[in-house]
Amino acid sequence: MYQAGDRNDRILLARVPGGVPVPEDFAYDVTAIPTPGPGQFVSRTIYLSLEPHYRMFMRPGQTAPHGLCAGDVMPGETVAQVMQSRHSDYRRGDFVLTRNGWQQFALSSGQDARKLDPAIAPISTALGVLGLPGLCGYAGLLYLGQPKPGETVVVSAATGAVGSTVGQVARMVSARAVGIAGSDEKCGYAVNDLGYTACLSHRSPQFLAELRSACPEGIDVYFDNTGGEVLSSALEQLAIHARVVLCGMAAAYSRQSMPPGPPLLAVIRARATLLGILAEDYLPYLPELIKVVGGWIRSGRFRYREDISEGLASAPTAFCRLLRGENFGKALVRIAPEHL
Amino acid sequence: MYQAGDRNDRILLARVPGGVPVPEDFAYDVTAIPTPGPGQFVSRTIYLSLEPHYRMFMRPGQTAPHGLCAGDVMPGETVAQVMQSRHSDYRRGDFVLTRNGWQQFALSSGQDARKLDPAIAPISTALGVLGLPGLCGYAGLLYLGQPKPGETVVVSAATGAVGSTVGQVARMVSARAVGIAGSDEKCGYAVNDLGYTACLSHRSPQFLAELRSACPEGIDVYFDNTGGEVLSSALEQLAIHARVVLCGMAAAYSRQSMPPGPPLLAVIRARATLLGILAEDYLPYLPELIKVVGGWIRSGRFRYREDISEGLASAPTAFCRLLRGENFGKALVRIAPEHL
Repeated sequence: MYQAGDRNDRILLARVPGGVPVPEDFAYDVTAIPTPGPGQFVSRTIYLSLEPHYRMFMRPGQTAPHGLCAGDVMPGETVAQVMQSRHSDYRRGDFVLTRNGWQQFALSSGQDARKLDPAIAPISTALGVLGLPGLCGYAGLLYLGQPKPGETVVVSAATGAVGSTVGQVARMVSARAVGIAGSDEKCGYAVNDLGYTACLSHRSPQFLAELRSACPEGIDVYFDNTGGEVLSSALEQLAIHARVVLCGMAAAYSRQSMPPGPPLLAVIRARATLLGILAEDYLPYLPELIKVVGGWIRSGRFRYREDISEGLASAPTAFCRLLRGENFGKALVRIAPEHL
Repeated sequence: MYQAGDRNDRILLARVPGGVPVPEDFAYDVTAIPTPGPGQFVSRTIYLSLEPHYRMFMRPGQTAPHGLCAGDVMPGETVAQVMQSRHSDYRRGDFVLTRNGWQQFALSSGQDARKLDPAIAPISTALGVLGLPGLCGYAGLLYLGQPKPGETVVVSAATGAVGSTVGQVARMVSARAVGIAGSDEKCGYAVNDLGYTACLSHRSPQFLAELRSACPEGIDVYFDNTGGEVLSSALEQLAIHARVVLCGMAAAYSRQSMPPGPPLLAVIRARATLLGILAEDYLPYLPELIKVVGGWIRSGRFRYREDISEGLASAPTAFCRLLRGENFGKALVRIAPEHL
């Protein structure tokens, strides 16, 4: 049993990384578990979500609330359990989605927190396919991409939390899902477990030709999680009136200056629509996601994969792997066991 | 009075240009006026429209119908007058919109042709503000850009046929129109004659800062006719949920290989929508354009400017000027007088 004043381990940003982060950019730190004031609760972090776009906040001269400076606790979405509460809506033992960041315990005022029902699906999914990444994939595909039966939907980072949601939702609405991933192993999983019609490795020397032959009538919906060369290649294969959902730019996050983007003449040629999405805009659709995809998960029709690192101390290494694209599934850190 | 068999002067593509075309890339040629067969008519070209995107068809290894090879008559939209007709819908003396290309006379089967009513507006407008360029600006702004009163609409190539339509239609729907053009002279015309709130020269060393201060609440609708650096700068200033209409990429047409495009992270950040447009898709809206903008022209509320070169022989030089951005207004060549 933990108490206020006990040891709270956490990880700080030690310095602004130069390019792709290395573990030495982070520092281990120990403080005390805080005491909740009126209207607050303290929760114990169980799962920490690692998100590549946090790299963007680590830039020289950045400041709060959006920037990260040396000495700041690394931020991040977490699944946690309430340990002590002076908040009327939260009780000891409740599972909650919070933003504890890279630490074992944190205070919350309940703002931005959300109670989790472990009966719906494993609680870790609140950080992945039933959380913001799944929401981005689900709402981005259905409400922005608007695929029709028989259309070809292509998605990059096809086996991540966003990508695997896009691919499986595409299949559920009778579209053809074609994945793009970074290894043959991921591609095998995409086809065999997630039900993609085909999955291509963007590292293949024949990638462009393979993409063309996997999409003989062009790409009707392209869901981009990477940016860079993969995005440029996909734009060249767009069908007339294609929709392109821009969700993430992992290829750009570690760059010192913004790299140029894809040539856009192909967008005019295809009379295509490009749509930028931030998952937070779609929070009103979260109940729909939880109902629809949660149901598919319970019936076994929807699969997902998690890449779980064990222990808070593993977070820096796991984050660096993520930014090198070496994770396989939603990147999580298990900070504490689900059941004490 | 002309007759079949009389001299028909025309201009051919002599060779595929290396970069920005030079007059030596074209050759003068003389043939005979053709004789109409059943269902055909012969027309005399009055105005020839010069369009920068034709440069894209001039590439090594291109073939018909989309490519242009050495020896081909240069194509182009024209306003012409029927001289001799065996087509039941067209009579001698009718003014018509045709695709005669760079020549004095041409045959037509009536396909893609359209009769013009000189009472609506000067016939040359069928190649500009009441033709495909105007349609692109009108429908692209209203149906894709969807500006609301008080929103800021920014348009590049602000004094061309497309741009001047966008700017004036934006004003008519009570949006703030901010133009971007290539010289102080064009900017003065944009503000004083076309009613733009402000117009900035993209050649100014302070262009970015000027754009920011002309759009203090960001850009709600950006209508792009140029691509390149101007597009990148505009994307950085987008307001949340901005719409970007991609209409032309003049900056790219003369390049040997496709240059990279703008960084797209700004599109995600703004949750913006980018929409590629081809005017031809909006031909069903042409009667609306002619009714609405034609009415504004007759009432003096809508202005436009034409940059007219005299005589067929001036077409190569005028086309090269156009691709260097040196035209001021819709680029036309007067091949023959309107009234014989």
